Amino acid sequence: MKQSICSLLGIKLPIISGGMVWCSGHKLAAAVSLSGGLGLIGAGSMHPETLRQHIQKIKVTLGNTPFGVNIPLFYPELETLIYILTEEKVPVVVTSGGNPALYTQRLKETGAIVMHVIASVKFAKKAAEAGVDAVIAEGFEAGGHNGRDELPTMILTPMVAQAVDIPVIAAGGIAQGCQWLAAEALGANGIQIGSLFAVSEESSAHQNFKELCLTLGENSTHLSLKGLSPVRLIKNEFFARVNEAEARGASKEEITEILGRGRAKKGIFEGDLVEGELEIGQNIAMINEVKPVKEMVEILIEQYNEAKLNLK
Amino acid sequence: MKQSICSLLGIKLPIISGGMVWCSGHKLAAAVSLSGGLGLIGAGSMHPETLRQHIQKIKVTLGNTPFGVNIPLFYPELETLIYILTEEKVPVVVTSGGNPALYTQRLKETGAIVMHVIASVKFAKKAAEAGVDAVIAEGFEAGGHNGRDELPTMILTPMVAQAVDIPVIAAGGIAQGCQWLAAEALGANGIQIGSLFAVSEESSAHQNFKELCLTLGENSTHLSLKGLSPVRLIKNEFFARVNEAEARGASKEEITEILGRGRAKKGIFEGDLVEGELEIGQNIAMINEVKPVKEMVEILIEQYNEAKLNLK
Repeated sequence: MKQSICSLLGIKLPIISGGMVWCSGHKLAAAVSLSGGLGLIGAGSMHPETLRQHIQKIKVTLGNTPFGVNIPLFYPELETLIYILTEEKVPVVVTSGGNPALYTQRLKETGAIVMHVIASVKFAKKAAEAGVDAVIAEGFEAGGHNGRDELPTMILTPMVAQAVDIPVIAAGGIAQGCQWLAAEALGANGIQIGSLFAVSEESSAHQNFKELCLTLGENSTHLSLKGLSPVRLIKNEFFARVNEAEARGASKEEITEILGRGRAKKGIFEGDLVEGELEIGQNIAMINEVKPVKEMVEILIEQYNEAKLNLK
Repeated sequence: MKQSICSLLGIKLPIISGGMVWCSGHKLAAAVSLSGGLGLIGAGSMHPETLRQHIQKIKVTLGNTPFGVNIPLFYPELETLIYILTEEKVPVVVTSGGNPALYTQRLKETGAIVMHVIASVKFAKKAAEAGVDAVIAEGFEAGGHNGRDELPTMILTPMVAQAVDIPVIAAGGIAQGCQWLAAEALGANGIQIGSLFAVSEESSAHQNFKELCLTLGENSTHLSLKGLSPVRLIKNEFFARVNEAEARGASKEEITEILGRGRAKKGIFEGDLVEGELEIGQNIAMINEVKPVKEMVEILIEQYNEAKLNLK
């Protein structure tokens, strides 16, 4: 038996929120932690000093209740971020993209619990070797950055759970109680929720973005930009331009130029639905209302219990 | 509560086998039915008279035990096939690809139970309207032909189960007991198994194909030929050629020419691993042994019960 995620992280519910760029500020993270899960601040969209402010604010709100910070290991000012995390004694650090061997030991030495996001068994094993406390196995269904092997949660979770001895948190395709139960059936010790919390009241995403998300259907997102780094995007006009270029075999340079800079901010934070890079998971088709996190979590628990009853 | 798949089909286990081209002959279908599930003969790779022979042979083996036939609705000699199915009084017909409104009523009038394979809620609703008895919701994980919306089982199953009133069979990503349990948690009333049975002893696939399958890993397949009709393929030399052409934006005509004719037969049935079109699902990474179907089903039940115990 693997250690439970709740005892590892000191939380009541085995739910963590994704560190979603332009959504996961201290407000969303605090709301998730106060609901019994583990909220993550997403550092990917923050300047180092902005991150410090978010950490200091969440500490005031939460007191001793745990929270975490997600840092992409390809972040340009990575050293500074790591320094802030250790100085501020952030209880849980989730690293993603990049080599977990680089910072895991340093973070653990300062008392942090370290988890790493992976999208294949190969990288799950590398993360376990690097000494992380748990892996977050993120499937093809997830929004935003995604693995190259296109493994959905139904395949990835059991493969990873059977391959490593540390706890596994399933991510991607989980926004309903039945999906939470399915993830546990597949061998997950906990779940990470992205898209649902991205459209919560406490998410710092722009109102335009949230409202668009509520209207989306089963064919509204697509895994795109595979020549650079795969990202699941909403099919807006910017996406159509990328898609057209990719279909005619445009060069990496041309795609990079079309992408430009700061598009995720433009779309998700500033609400430009035409020119923005709009990241969300496939589950968005089943999400039809903006609600406070607390209510979302209560519904999840209700659905989970109902699904469990139906299974008997 | 939806009708159980077992009572609908008159079987003991809620397991059906996929109608896999060049794998699903009367031997594989009979083995699945004799193990308590519903075996399907895959008509997609058969001349009409070959299909009739397979049906007549399976009837001898099975007596009153039910079986089914899968027919792709884009089959060139469709009228002839439908005639054979009704004449031979095939108890269960699974249609796939194409419009279920065309033949469902005619097949039902001759006493057949009709199920249709779909890969989106949109088509699930159309199938329900056409009067099918159940839908088979096939996710992105599956081998061979695949939906355009790239919806994995984790997303597709609950969406479809919540959208239609008829029973839903989950397909794609199910080769272990924990995945079977997960499918039920997601709201499926039964499961369809493809890749696992494709490498069973009774599958008519070539030994070369089965042996290659046992060596495959998590990044060995890819959803390909999206410009024509998406198919999940093993990354062999033929795949590499298609992939290279697609990456440089080759025309539909050029891709069609590269594909040519009869490649699935060449690869799966004749064992040409270089030039063949090799269709298999992502789960193949977890399948490491050729076994008789009966043994595979016993292991599935064991794993399912174990996963259910772990969930409590």
